[in-house]
Amino acid sequence: MSVTDELLANNADYAARFSGPLPLPPAKHVAVLACMDARINVYGVLGLQEGEAHVIRNAGGVATDDAIRSLAISQRLLGTEEIVLIHHTDCGMLTFTDDGFKKSIQDEVGIKPPWAAEAFTDLEDDVRQSIARIRNSPFVPKKDSVRGFVFDVATGKLAEVS
Amino acid sequence: MSVTDELLANNADYAARFSGPLPLPPAKHVAVLACMDARINVYGVLGLQEGEAHVIRNAGGVATDDAIRSLAISQRLLGTEEIVLIHHTDCGMLTFTDDGFKKSIQDEVGIKPPWAAEAFTDLEDDVRQSIARIRNSPFVPKKDSVRGFVFDVATGKLAEVS
Repeated sequence: MSVTDELLANNADYAARFSGPLPLPPAKHVAVLACMDARINVYGVLGLQEGEAHVIRNAGGVATDDAIRSLAISQRLLGTEEIVLIHHTDCGMLTFTDDGFKKSIQDEVGIKPPWAAEAFTDLEDDVRQSIARIRNSPFVPKKDSVRGFVFDVATGKLAEVS
Repeated sequence: MSVTDELLANNADYAARFSGPLPLPPAKHVAVLACMDARINVYGVLGLQEGEAHVIRNAGGVATDDAIRSLAISQRLLGTEEIVLIHHTDCGMLTFTDDGFKKSIQDEVGIKPPWAAEAFTDLEDDVRQSIARIRNSPFVPKKDSVRGFVFDVATGKLAEVS
């Protein structure tokens, strides 16, 4: 049995306990942008329930153009107002460089990715970089509460980046 | 108190029960690409535990270039092998068009977004479109298990798209 089949079996248990449907707009009017890291269970970490917050995730939790697209849709069409950014300790994005990662792909498949890999060398600086990108974007209208945090994978705690 | 402050208070409860750290690579070698919709608690829907799977999310759960970037990092650097795509019923992406959304932003702030909004008109077709983009990408090496599902927000069930 593949892992995907195992997860589908888990879904039958989830559906058996499920009560829905909930409304489309997030009840708490908040959007979270977090790293894809397997150890960050966003609903658990923030005590969120189904229906409360948009959750956007990518490698690094970086405010890429695609994250800005998602935030623009979240705020402009679905009424979110606060943004919570989550990076984390022991992040894979600290272990390589954009140049090295892209060269390894080019060496192997002959094509260099046209995108930035978005690796970084300092966690807090990259949180600040993502906040700055959001604040600078003309497509995200609500910027009164854009706050960034580092999740400690050893303790489960969030520390705010100032 | 802002919602963000409320979520931080929830995090203190989470950290009090937390046992870590777990290893960086996802234990189940799987990456999930899902819509940011607030009603999809990916860990709950798939019965995942902390540390088991990468979770990538954006507006629509679409295989954008940024999702491909995340999948490339997930597979090439952190050993995931299976990909699970999740779209869902009652999706906001069915309620607008790229042209309309971008024109509304241009009318309001004077700048037209240089990215596609990635709206779609048929859920299952867009799952197939995302699968096709992944299968066609030279940057994602492992394609033996790329499967797509629609999550029903009324029942909690996943239905596979063939």
